[in-house]
Amino acid sequence: MSKGFLLIISGPAGTGKGTVCKELLKRNTNIIFSVSATTRGPRVGEIDGENYFFIDKEKFETMIGNDEFLEYAYVHTNYYGTPKKFVMEEINKGEIVLLEIDVQGAMQIKKNYSEAVFIFLLPPTMEELKNRIIKRGTESEEDINRRFENAFKELDFVGNYDYFVVNDIVEDAVSDIESIIKAEKLRVKRQSRIKEKVLLKGGR
Amino acid sequence: MSKGFLLIISGPAGTGKGTVCKELLKRNTNIIFSVSATTRGPRVGEIDGENYFFIDKEKFETMIGNDEFLEYAYVHTNYYGTPKKFVMEEINKGEIVLLEIDVQGAMQIKKNYSEAVFIFLLPPTMEELKNRIIKRGTESEEDINRRFENAFKELDFVGNYDYFVVNDIVEDAVSDIESIIKAEKLRVKRQSRIKEKVLLKGGR
Repeated sequence: MSKGFLLIISGPAGTGKGTVCKELLKRNTNIIFSVSATTRGPRVGEIDGENYFFIDKEKFETMIGNDEFLEYAYVHTNYYGTPKKFVMEEINKGEIVLLEIDVQGAMQIKKNYSEAVFIFLLPPTMEELKNRIIKRGTESEEDINRRFENAFKELDFVGNYDYFVVNDIVEDAVSDIESIIKAEKLRVKRQSRIKEKVLLKGGR
Repeated sequence: MSKGFLLIISGPAGTGKGTVCKELLKRNTNIIFSVSATTRGPRVGEIDGENYFFIDKEKFETMIGNDEFLEYAYVHTNYYGTPKKFVMEEINKGEIVLLEIDVQGAMQIKKNYSEAVFIFLLPPTMEELKNRIIKRGTESEEDINRRFENAFKELDFVGNYDYFVVNDIVEDAVSDIESIIKAEKLRVKRQSRIKEKVLLKGGR
């Protein structure tokens, strides 16, 4: 049986990671979405093990100590992280696990688990990137400018990724990612005993 | 502008390299077929620079001496080889160059130009591989058995390739290869100045 892989979809704020991942999962129901762990409490309707693994701070810090995260971050008094165990179990079952993550998180994973497939989402233009950041609408002009400058700087990280996908029309971006997935499944390095498999199927 | 790449389609006799390449070129008229050089004379209807580059033995051996081949072989009193110049010029123009070649030739290219994309064609079963070798119909049972044993041994080389494609139904094999091409075009390593390209398109 062939191993699955961890598919990282990443990029600066405003590149449309969330929209692209949602459409990708809708069109490919066999892809497993990586569930994060967090120390924040569940919101109404959130289900443990589905939206997040909800754990307390002590448990989270023990897991950090035991090197049980592919990446983690401390944001506004709470931890968020990607538990290794869940991802590795699914990969070993042959599944493709999707992780939507910011650039900093992706760079942590690159260090800890470089076998993942790293895709960098690009905005079609800088103009459009700014528009998308503005459209979120909840922030002051200062915040918007700061986010835009951040996003602009983060574009420099594209060189650390395997693939880039321009997210102009969502359907096209998803179709690009589907081709990457199809190609990655055909990688020799992810298959063991290809010759034996052909023989087993056909007899000799 | 992004660089193109050399796409190697290879595999043992009987895996259907010729059929798959013909269909791939038919469906993708933008792919450039790599023209080989040979010292054998042109047959009726063959055009220099299209079917082959027809050159004499002295010229061929000078080119060998000047390291002008990605690979070459001496078969039945004639030389056959893949001239570097043609391939590199097309790649630098951003083109995808297709080379259909046997396993030994592919392994020579792997040594000389490992940046190429190496695809190994597999038969669906060993039974089918034997059938395909038999179907050529021009050979004695001894020849058929020798070719089959050779093909069987050559399957061990799959580990040196980037991708494997099972050629059961030709259309499916071609569609797999098209996905590999689409993914390879999205590789970060083949693009220079991705950030600048986004900026140039959009202004800032």
